[in-house]
Amino acid sequence: MSAARADPYRSRMSTPQPPVGPVDNSRIPRYAGPSTFAQLPRADEVPAADVAVLGVPFDSGVSYRPGARFGPNHIRTASKLLRPYNPALDVAPFAVQQVVDAGDLAVNPFDISEAVATIEAAARAYESTKLLTLGGDHTIALPLLRAAAAAHGPIGVVHFDAHLDTWDTYFGEPTTHGTPFRRAAEEGLLDPERCLHIGIRGPLYTAEDLTADGVLGFQVIRADDYETSSVADVVARMRRRLGSGPVYVSVDIDILDPAHAPGTGTPEAGGLTSRELLNTLRGLVGLNVIGADLVEVAPAYDHAEITGVAAAHVAYELLSVLARNRLA
Amino acid sequence: MSAARADPYRSRMSTPQPPVGPVDNSRIPRYAGPSTFAQLPRADEVPAADVAVLGVPFDSGVSYRPGARFGPNHIRTASKLLRPYNPALDVAPFAVQQVVDAGDLAVNPFDISEAVATIEAAARAYESTKLLTLGGDHTIALPLLRAAAAAHGPIGVVHFDAHLDTWDTYFGEPTTHGTPFRRAAEEGLLDPERCLHIGIRGPLYTAEDLTADGVLGFQVIRADDYETSSVADVVARMRRRLGSGPVYVSVDIDILDPAHAPGTGTPEAGGLTSRELLNTLRGLVGLNVIGADLVEVAPAYDHAEITGVAAAHVAYELLSVLARNRLA
Amino acid sequence: MSAARADPYRSRMSTPQPPVGPVDNSRIPRYAGPSTFAQLPRADEVPAADVAVLGVPFDSGVSYRPGARFGPNHIRTASKLLRPYNPALDVAPFAVQQVVDAGDLAVNPFDISEAVATIEAAARAYESTKLLTLGGDHTIALPLLRAAAAAHGPIGVVHFDAHLDTWDTYFGEPTTHGTPFRRAAEEGLLDPERCLHIGIRGPLYTAEDLTADGVLGFQVIRADDYETSSVADVVARMRRRLGSGPVYVSVDIDILDPAHAPGTGTPEAGGLTSRELLNTLRGLVGLNVIGADLVEVAPAYDHAEITGVAAAHVAYELLSVLARNRLA
Amino acid sequence: MSAARADPYRSRMSTPQPPVGPVDNSRIPRYAGPSTFAQLPRADEVPAADVAVLGVPFDSGVSYRPGARFGPNHIRTASKLLRPYNPALDVAPFAVQQVVDAGDLAVNPFDISEAVATIEAAARAYESTKLLTLGGDHTIALPLLRAAAAAHGPIGVVHFDAHLDTWDTYFGEPTTHGTPFRRAAEEGLLDPERCLHIGIRGPLYTAEDLTADGVLGFQVIRADDYETSSVADVVARMRRRLGSGPVYVSVDIDILDPAHAPGTGTPEAGGLTSRELLNTLRGLVGLNVIGADLVEVAPAYDHAEITGVAAAHVAYELLSVLARNRLA
Amino acid sequence: MSAARADPYRSRMSTPQPPVGPVDNSRIPRYAGPSTFAQLPRADEVPAADVAVLGVPFDSGVSYRPGARFGPNHIRTASKLLRPYNPALDVAPFAVQQVVDAGDLAVNPFDISEAVATIEAAARAYESTKLLTLGGDHTIALPLLRAAAAAHGPIGVVHFDAHLDTWDTYFGEPTTHGTPFRRAAEEGLLDPERCLHIGIRGPLYTAEDLTADGVLGFQVIRADDYETSSVADVVARMRRRLGSGPVYVSVDIDILDPAHAPGTGTPEAGGLTSRELLNTLRGLVGLNVIGADLVEVAPAYDHAEITGVAAAHVAYELLSVLARNRLA
Amino acid sequence: MSAARADPYRSRMSTPQPPVGPVDNSRIPRYAGPSTFAQLPRADEVPAADVAVLGVPFDSGVSYRPGARFGPNHIRTASKLLRPYNPALDVAPFAVQQVVDAGDLAVNPFDISEAVATIEAAARAYESTKLLTLGGDHTIALPLLRAAAAAHGPIGVVHFDAHLDTWDTYFGEPTTHGTPFRRAAEEGLLDPERCLHIGIRGPLYTAEDLTADGVLGFQVIRADDYETSSVADVVARMRRRLGSGPVYVSVDIDILDPAHAPGTGTPEAGGLTSRELLNTLRGLVGLNVIGADLVEVAPAYDHAEITGVAAAHVAYELLSVLARNRLA
Repeated sequence: MSAARADPYRSRMSTPQPPVGPVDNSRIPRYAGPSTFAQLPRADEVPAADVAVLGVPFDSGVSYRPGARFGPNHIRTASKLLRPYNPALDVAPFAVQQVVDAGDLAVNPFDISEAVATIEAAARAYESTKLLTLGGDHTIALPLLRAAAAAHGPIGVVHFDAHLDTWDTYFGEPTTHGTPFRRAAEEGLLDPERCLHIGIRGPLYTAEDLTADGVLGFQVIRADDYETSSVADVVARMRRRLGSGPVYVSVDIDILDPAHAPGTGTPEAGGLTSRELLNTLRGLVGLNVIGADLVEVAPAYDHAEITGVAAAHVAYELLSVLARNRLA
Repeated sequence: MSAARADPYRSRMSTPQPPVGPVDNSRIPRYAGPSTFAQLPRADEVPAADVAVLGVPFDSGVSYRPGARFGPNHIRTASKLLRPYNPALDVAPFAVQQVVDAGDLAVNPFDISEAVATIEAAARAYESTKLLTLGGDHTIALPLLRAAAAAHGPIGVVHFDAHLDTWDTYFGEPTTHGTPFRRAAEEGLLDPERCLHIGIRGPLYTAEDLTADGVLGFQVIRADDYETSSVADVVARMRRRLGSGPVYVSVDIDILDPAHAPGTGTPEAGGLTSRELLNTLRGLVGLNVIGADLVEVAPAYDHAEITGVAAAHVAYELLSVLARNRLA
Repeated sequence: MSAARADPYRSRMSTPQPPVGPVDNSRIPRYAGPSTFAQLPRADEVPAADVAVLGVPFDSGVSYRPGARFGPNHIRTASKLLRPYNPALDVAPFAVQQVVDAGDLAVNPFDISEAVATIEAAARAYESTKLLTLGGDHTIALPLLRAAAAAHGPIGVVHFDAHLDTWDTYFGEPTTHGTPFRRAAEEGLLDPERCLHIGIRGPLYTAEDLTADGVLGFQVIRADDYETSSVADVVARMRRRLGSGPVYVSVDIDILDPAHAPGTGTPEAGGLTSRELLNTLRGLVGLNVIGADLVEVAPAYDHAEITGVAAAHVAYELLSVLARNRLA
Repeated sequence: MSAARADPYRSRMSTPQPPVGPVDNSRIPRYAGPSTFAQLPRADEVPAADVAVLGVPFDSGVSYRPGARFGPNHIRTASKLLRPYNPALDVAPFAVQQVVDAGDLAVNPFDISEAVATIEAAARAYESTKLLTLGGDHTIALPLLRAAAAAHGPIGVVHFDAHLDTWDTYFGEPTTHGTPFRRAAEEGLLDPERCLHIGIRGPLYTAEDLTADGVLGFQVIRADDYETSSVADVVARMRRRLGSGPVYVSVDIDILDPAHAPGTGTPEAGGLTSRELLNTLRGLVGLNVIGADLVEVAPAYDHAEITGVAAAHVAYELLSVLARNRLA
Repeated sequence: MSAARADPYRSRMSTPQPPVGPVDNSRIPRYAGPSTFAQLPRADEVPAADVAVLGVPFDSGVSYRPGARFGPNHIRTASKLLRPYNPALDVAPFAVQQVVDAGDLAVNPFDISEAVATIEAAARAYESTKLLTLGGDHTIALPLLRAAAAAHGPIGVVHFDAHLDTWDTYFGEPTTHGTPFRRAAEEGLLDPERCLHIGIRGPLYTAEDLTADGVLGFQVIRADDYETSSVADVVARMRRRLGSGPVYVSVDIDILDPAHAPGTGTPEAGGLTSRELLNTLRGLVGLNVIGADLVEVAPAYDHAEITGVAAAHVAYELLSVLARNRLA
Repeated sequence: MSAARADPYRSRMSTPQPPVGPVDNSRIPRYAGPSTFAQLPRADEVPAADVAVLGVPFDSGVSYRPGARFGPNHIRTASKLLRPYNPALDVAPFAVQQVVDAGDLAVNPFDISEAVATIEAAARAYESTKLLTLGGDHTIALPLLRAAAAAHGPIGVVHFDAHLDTWDTYFGEPTTHGTPFRRAAEEGLLDPERCLHIGIRGPLYTAEDLTADGVLGFQVIRADDYETSSVADVVARMRRRLGSGPVYVSVDIDILDPAHAPGTGTPEAGGLTSRELLNTLRGLVGLNVIGADLVEVAPAYDHAEITGVAAAHVAYELLSVLARNRLA
């Protein structure tokens, strides 16, 4: 399709080559637009990108329901409904920065070690382009953190999830979707003064899970804290913990309640609403966000794109945070 | 079926002909009752009606997922679980007024102009009977507003929706589900001092969408405002804006979060819970409500009637508001 | 399967025979573990049990959507994701007490009277073992209350539900899923000073439904109260009402909003979130809980185990309350 | 809705009052038409009926998946796509006879005996009007056979089903969906020389099930016979067995393979295609068909109306057979 | 993604620039491959194409269930499982001809006339490239036939469908999904000696539907004919009718039974199996096929890609027929 | 549950300890029975078993849709509808041999090599007990064939599948669900004169796939052959190929058409009906069947247990073949 692309930003951008945005849905129906994230250009359609949305369809690290390998395309499909201007943050995230869809990384589903190496190498290749990675299961956070720390040194991490993901091994395997942040901490990739989990809930294996997690450098804001605190309070706690250093954002969609995200692998009741999550993410504006991932969307368990739409909005808010930070 | 109909109201009604209510579900199982809304009588079964529930199965104005043409019957099916007394408003909405199911309007799916004309003519024919219209997509609000304004002059509108629906055109078409309130404002159907949207969220095309919307006469209560305000606060703002003049209520089911209303055409994350919506609607008691619609229920995307039940309850609260107003 | 069973509790338990807990999911994948609740031992695998999880697959008392006969196994399947330690209550519910899965009771689906008698007899046979019963429809609460009152005298009841379930008859039948608490009150099984409903919402038949319910001894905390009160306030009211006597807990999963529990028979919009429910249940710690049921999970209407997971967590919190009470 | 009704039959009917047919779907969209079977008139809209389609939403006799209580309305909804002329039998079934939708019978879901009595009484009330009954579970065949035999004496039965339905009791209950034909035979309602099952497959309890069944008067055409015989051969065998006496047709939708009818309670692999079933039913033309039922459609397990559409076509072919017989 | 593309054909192709085929799925997982049909190159990635797969996401001409606007992308997704060599026809359809994915045509959903004009213009622009068009509803066949006849003169048509699609108007609208072949015949686009329908079944409006259809030039092979004839017989009849002139192939997915294609708008029981359809399509080898469409895939009603996979295979067989014809 | 177990076989068995069969479903409803296959005893409930049904929930070898790890329990649930006597083969498979459910094998999902070794070791441990293994993906056939060949020497294989599964590697990985039979042939586990595939269809990578497959020792009966041959012909060809030596039966559920088995990972249109498959399997009676597997049931894609019921019946026919062979 020779897609007409909207350019409503020309008036507000003085550079000779404004970013290429999504196609114009007043002339091209959304369902006829490109299959890229938010109907944005592919990486090969523009000379350079400020931010790349990269799919990593890998789910061989899961311990329960698999299927997140189909996550990237599911989020892309659900992202067709996104429009160019974000009133909540008063920013046009595709106008103040060039965002592209970098397609999917081809990773070996049969060999976790090779897959992780492939992902790290790919992430390192994006030097000046920030990455928003669409998983795939949470295993992929480890190589992404390795690449991020290689560029920035030890980093702060805000981890949105129902689960700690700092367990040790399953079946002796150290690299799974339940272990990336323990490995990352052990490897010195994380700044132990600037890490926290948000959304934790549900049963653990032992009480020691929490103490061990704290030793690795994580604070915890529980999902239940949203019942007793306002989002503004949570945001304040989050910002205090993350400080001014580089911040990596990792969002497991199972932070949402199963009502808001049925399409995931290890659902836990008692989660966040999508409204709570989106408002919390907006609190990242002004922090030094260097990269992000969005993982564990398993479409076979989704219905009517409930999960896909929530994930697309999560990605959109993250891109808007990056855009606002660029304007600052 | 010669359905026995409950008449628990006779004792409290002194008129010789009390309204005919739903069938008695202690003798007729709900699943065996009539297919009308709330198992109420059809329009042709009673001599006159105070309120008519009218289906308008038209969805040719949608820009993304179609299917709201099946909305009226889906809401009727889900309404089988409604019972006659509303404790939240302390009123029996089918006892203090005669409510009927007026069936579906047959409108041309292939010609938007003809369809809109058919709907307007049908709505004008209901003179002393108030209409609660079940869509269908939001396009139908335009002819319904035309009929309402013809009877009442410029009217206040409270519009529950994730979207502004004051956009201009798609593909050059001025009459779609994204444009009814702009057309209505342009035609002078609305009182520009007494219109507001509730539930707005998600991305827009440009920042100008909001300023243009304000020029048309709309204030905005965002979905996010429910995170920082109480429902009582929202209700107070709503009542101040609507004042004492005639009020038309338009409810797009996508005001609800996709978790609460997956069965709709353009879902947006971060929406209202059904509890928030129902409690807000109850705040309409005492306002001069002249008519209402409930649109964008697309059953092909619903599951287990999550959306249908929410919509049936929305309709029930609207009918209860009318009943309470009648008692006042 | 000769399942390896985890025993992380040995260090903290000084008794010679610590409880047998779930299998160890770091060596046995959850999907390969036993089909019992929480992968716990069957009743015949341990010499004695402190608490038995008993399925009662009976749904012949329903008035609308049937299917809760498949509820017990659905909850068991969804419970595979439970882990042994509950951080919200700081207790390991399977370590401080022996919990077993007692399988399903075989009850006659064609004869309500016989079924109810079978259930009562079975419940009476559990003398020193507390029962957490998985329904099945709410009819089963009547025989369970009979057995409980036989052991404890008139009991306080906290009833989590969208509906009062104190109606009189349907089709002349006194024993259905809409009537157990009226029958129980009539039989003197309940302490009329210590009963309450939580989560009530939606239409009733007449205003007298509420007054009659009050006469039977029930107070009401409405679902809407969660909109205006905090969970802590609800818990305080609940604890005041229940006092220090024996308490039976009956949870109809339709207390949750259809978004959080689509898989049930008589859904009502405007319900609780699972987070609200779980936090309320934790407020039972310290009360004299003598037994509990969890009913009305109808899997044919569930999706991706949204309802099943919520129900499994409800059961887990109830077991945790029992564990905490044992430690006190 | 004041529905315009098509009358394309006037030219071919010389009587002063031709039958009232379905509404005209070139002016009224199907989704806007009445909720009756095939958009036909209700019983109260015409002075008399040759054939009545009667819903019996009763499923308290099932042994596995319940839900057939929602069957009648599901079949009605799926029947919206039916058109007035059947080319396969060259007949317009709604033009040569007055077919009406008689609505649903309200039967007690809590008392099988009372329900069966209600059904028998209702069926006996249709004297000169033939009944096509939509279930509901197969229990309803017993009272329908009682009424049929009361009018016609012992009757031949052609029973389309995966199962024999001549078992004795479950839990001591003699009247269930697995036993109607044994009861009927015991009561002398059947002509033991003119009964047969078609579509039988799957495991039985013992080899004696078949011998006992034969003693009751049934021959068996197995589903597997369709693999080795043509439909024409099956039809020939069926016609030889049924002879010239009165024939009652009972169709359990589970005669179809689960691929063709997932929405049923006791599915068995290896079934018929809908094409095989429809072609077999056409072979009933010329036999003395006195009544028919269509049972065990359980919508909660259907998808996209696969089962509903098949059932609607089954009903349509049965009505066409009656129409052809009337013309002969 | 810089997708590695397989070229297993180089050895058998002597031209300097062999066609570019799908990506190599032994190195790029299917779920990571491009979103094009069969993971083929986009039109802009190769200098020229022999065959273009073009999406036309238009469904404003439907009379019942809408949603075929999402058909093209659904078929593309399901086509990820296709591999390069077709053993049934002994041909590698992507190796002997350059097949490309031409994306989706942006057509106005609100104006049937404009949409039809857009489609015709687009189709005429493909001069030496053959078109396989993915709908969309059957309305699109009319402009495609206009373009085909403009290039070839009156053409033979083989139309696979449950329905005749030679009706006249709905609501006075002459251009809908039920009328394209009547319009085409009226405009002289068809060779009245070389047209036929295959798969016809289900009720019609009147007996005259068939005679009128015959007058327009169509013969009919009914779905029921597959019950009494072999596929080879059907193929022989089809080939006799189509002769040696130019042939256009139009496949409405509802030719398949709802069991094999639930995801469509007007399902009819008694249809073909996918095996029957694929084997029939292979019988087109050697005929002068000039173009084809595949329409009425409505994904909202599909499950687990049953319909999508069938459609992808239909498209694959059509491309294989074109490839075999090219080799001849 | 202390489940009453039926013993209808006592009269026909003279041994002092007849096999323990399923529970008696006239006293224990199916939905209340044990979760074992066919409600049979667990391995630890009887002293010895003739045949063990063993689950192997492993799906880390799949190339497209994962999820077969949930296959064993899905088949068990669907098997609740099986009854004790198979009229098609005139045998009571649970009465003439002791069949048990051996539970699930716990295999490492993160390491294919370790998993394969675990499976082989487990299979070798069953010496005199025949195994019917429920997968899991087709990778598991390799260790099962190793164990079978260790006991029997090179074996004949009849492989029911849409795919050859004799491909070489994916991503360099030799042990996946697409390669077990190539590895088995290379290792000399197969008798190259007595292997065949049944059900093959759909595209391949190259024409060489088939020739290479033949070199490995396989003949091919295509799914299309069922269109032109009778099942009896297929059976005759199968029996000629398999001869009198030991035969291993491997059934990939995707041999069925997606209409009959949507719940699988790599669906192909044009497949078998369940009736064709069951009738073919019965043709194995009298052959020396030494073991069998049933793989690739992926429940997340199933609907209403269409696939599960088909798989349960496949397993039942295989057990019946073993029973008949034992009687011979």
